[in-house]
Amino acid sequence: MTYDLIIVGGGPAGYHAADLAGKAKLKTLLIEKNKIGGVCLNEGCIPSKTLLYSAKLYDNARHSNKYGVTAENVVFDHKTVLKRKDKVIKILATGIKKRLKNNDVEILAGSGQILAKKPAGFAIQVNDTSYLGKKLLLAPGSEPVIPPIPGLKEGLENSFVVTNREILNIPAIPSSLAIIGGGVIGLEMASYFNSVGSKVTIIEMLDHIGGNIDLDIANLLQQDYQKKGITFLLNSRVMQINNNSITIAGPKGQDTIEAENVLLSVGRKAATAALGVENIGLNTERDFIITNELGQTNIPDVYAAGDINGKSMLAHTAYKEAEICISTILGKESVMNYQAIPAVIYTNPEVAGCGETETSAQEKGLEYKTISLSMRYSGRYIAENEGGNGICKLLIDKKNKRLLGAHLLGNYASEIIFGPALMIEKNMIIEDIQNLVFPHPTVSEIIKEGALEL
Amino acid sequence: MTYDLIIVGGGPAGYHAADLAGKAKLKTLLIEKNKIGGVCLNEGCIPSKTLLYSAKLYDNARHSNKYGVTAENVVFDHKTVLKRKDKVIKILATGIKKRLKNNDVEILAGSGQILAKKPAGFAIQVNDTSYLGKKLLLAPGSEPVIPPIPGLKEGLENSFVVTNREILNIPAIPSSLAIIGGGVIGLEMASYFNSVGSKVTIIEMLDHIGGNIDLDIANLLQQDYQKKGITFLLNSRVMQINNNSITIAGPKGQDTIEAENVLLSVGRKAATAALGVENIGLNTERDFIITNELGQTNIPDVYAAGDINGKSMLAHTAYKEAEICISTILGKESVMNYQAIPAVIYTNPEVAGCGETETSAQEKGLEYKTISLSMRYSGRYIAENEGGNGICKLLIDKKNKRLLGAHLLGNYASEIIFGPALMIEKNMIIEDIQNLVFPHPTVSEIIKEGALEL
Repeated sequence: MTYDLIIVGGGPAGYHAADLAGKAKLKTLLIEKNKIGGVCLNEGCIPSKTLLYSAKLYDNARHSNKYGVTAENVVFDHKTVLKRKDKVIKILATGIKKRLKNNDVEILAGSGQILAKKPAGFAIQVNDTSYLGKKLLLAPGSEPVIPPIPGLKEGLENSFVVTNREILNIPAIPSSLAIIGGGVIGLEMASYFNSVGSKVTIIEMLDHIGGNIDLDIANLLQQDYQKKGITFLLNSRVMQINNNSITIAGPKGQDTIEAENVLLSVGRKAATAALGVENIGLNTERDFIITNELGQTNIPDVYAAGDINGKSMLAHTAYKEAEICISTILGKESVMNYQAIPAVIYTNPEVAGCGETETSAQEKGLEYKTISLSMRYSGRYIAENEGGNGICKLLIDKKNKRLLGAHLLGNYASEIIFGPALMIEKNMIIEDIQNLVFPHPTVSEIIKEGALEL
Repeated sequence: MTYDLIIVGGGPAGYHAADLAGKAKLKTLLIEKNKIGGVCLNEGCIPSKTLLYSAKLYDNARHSNKYGVTAENVVFDHKTVLKRKDKVIKILATGIKKRLKNNDVEILAGSGQILAKKPAGFAIQVNDTSYLGKKLLLAPGSEPVIPPIPGLKEGLENSFVVTNREILNIPAIPSSLAIIGGGVIGLEMASYFNSVGSKVTIIEMLDHIGGNIDLDIANLLQQDYQKKGITFLLNSRVMQINNNSITIAGPKGQDTIEAENVLLSVGRKAATAALGVENIGLNTERDFIITNELGQTNIPDVYAAGDINGKSMLAHTAYKEAEICISTILGKESVMNYQAIPAVIYTNPEVAGCGETETSAQEKGLEYKTISLSMRYSGRYIAENEGGNGICKLLIDKKNKRLLGAHLLGNYASEIIFGPALMIEKNMIIEDIQNLVFPHPTVSEIIKEGALEL
């Protein structure tokens, strides 16, 4: 059986590409070894947001006396939350499969391995059968990095240590949780387990949390969560995983942290292990497949999208890269632009940003001006956030007045940030933004308020 | 004392214009007879949103068992909510006054009346003193329409009937509330009092609620609130206000509705009564001051902005009109565009829209295509809205593929709608929207999902 397009990996890049390819009448085969939807739907974005929403409701039910609402015996039922999470995943997975079916995409369960490039196309083996694809799109995704820490392997085996996959199905709330890595996954899970009663400690190698987010926002978020009881150990490295504790080396020397469970969230690596990239001579770098701005690899007719190219590791980047790959395959001109990809951390308060940060702008030698504004300039923010410390930061190009970056700390940030991303994508200058009409009263108005500050 | 600019009215149009004028070094006098911030800050947008947020927390605390959160003895303390509302207003009023002071704007408490146009400027009388302004910006706002219904005057006098002003300070939750008028104010207050325990009846003359919003959304919202216990009497007219009831005439004849209180919210009229527009020969229509796209009236150097021109009656329109007036005064080219003003109803779920509706597009004879999508295409919507019936409707110009309108039912709509408004303002076509990157998982993604449906 020969296909126009074989896609390996059914996560956001793979299923979205399959959807678009099928719509364009390409005979398409989608191969997925686990579950359609990939890490994002099954072990990442969606389950974590389902859990975090329940935690937010729990927080609100207990802490709304300042808003005139009190409640007694507020109970969080982790088991119900997990069950509901599975239901949400099922609804969305069913939706994806239905769309793929409507677009005549064939779905195959199994691991796809590249065997060879043959005259008629690329041979891909799945469950002892070989399939031919005239074109190939590789989207196998990523998996957690397991660093060489003594005792880690044993910890993972006896479930003392868990990754993003297992934490989302942990049967009971641990009384204490040590989180190795204060990036997006670490912070979102810290937020959840802190809300539902775990004593949470975050161990981070860098001097700040949140990875590449704006540093002022990282500091404010840390302060906020310190008040809520999370312990942050920055500039700290895990030396050893013991039976019920971990040994770390930090600015004050070695220390031992006891915890009922440990979450390992130190980054993700390419899931290229059994893919057979070597069988057709694909160029890789640290196992990530190298692609250009059209989604092409070094081998003609072979494309890659999503986490596997190591560029951005976000579901919506994967969607966009999938669109670029299918556009290229269909002969349309479309180029990937990483300049304005928004990023969100679904803590409470939320963090969202897009474009340059001060750090990245300085590294690039850009001449920029920073506008930093308290969220308390927004009437709705005041109405809904007693004692909130949110901020909005805008970076403006000093010469041409273009918006370079936008960074928000405060709820609704996740739903607002597509706007600044669009402004950056469309090269809008600060006067364009000053002239827009934002509905009043909303938190989104802070973008205009910021622009008017210039 | 002669000013470069005298502004009558300290609501959104007036204070924002004063802010901008002061910043531009115009010697500016701002006259306000009640409180700085106007109806929006003191009797409208801000207090209602403060109340509605508390009501949402109350709803969530009682109805989150499906999300795994239960609580007992959930109590809503209306008095605390009112007190907090006053605090929120005070914080924001202080902020506005501080900004005005920083920009050297003089604030005068009193009613401003136009006396005459003199060679040196316009004479405005406030508290028996006359002030001269070289230019004049009129922003006195609007006040509730009091229709000639028998018994209404008496009902208002004995506080059986209240307007948007008094309802926000009502000392106790009425056991039952009849709301005359199912527009924005009526629906938001219906939402609040329904949540906090009143038996609410909405009486609406039209065959649908929500004024000019999308009719599908109006129907879905009505269904939602019917399930929550609100009674809707459409195509119904109030004939008489009695002692503890109102008499209405509807499709089934006359009926009497008993209620502890009645909210009158049938629209707003120009607050021109004591302004003295006749003393300088200003052109008006039904008491609204006629302005052009530069904010100018028929009298040179006299401008008007906000509700007083009767064009849109929204705070953010007032802001924008204020900006246009000051731009014109400063000799900058800037023209008012009403095409893409977003509008929000802060019910739960929220409603937000911008641009053309199907109704307005049909009236204008536009050739359009409608995309209507369930909000359940959004993963975050599924995660956060059990049983939600939200929708997203996009109107696209059939010929040039431009976005004509966007209409959302579902939470976060209020914070998302500035984006579609910006897309309309910037004449974006559907392919531009398809190519944008929206963060995943958010409700905002529904805009792109909709665009991809075309």
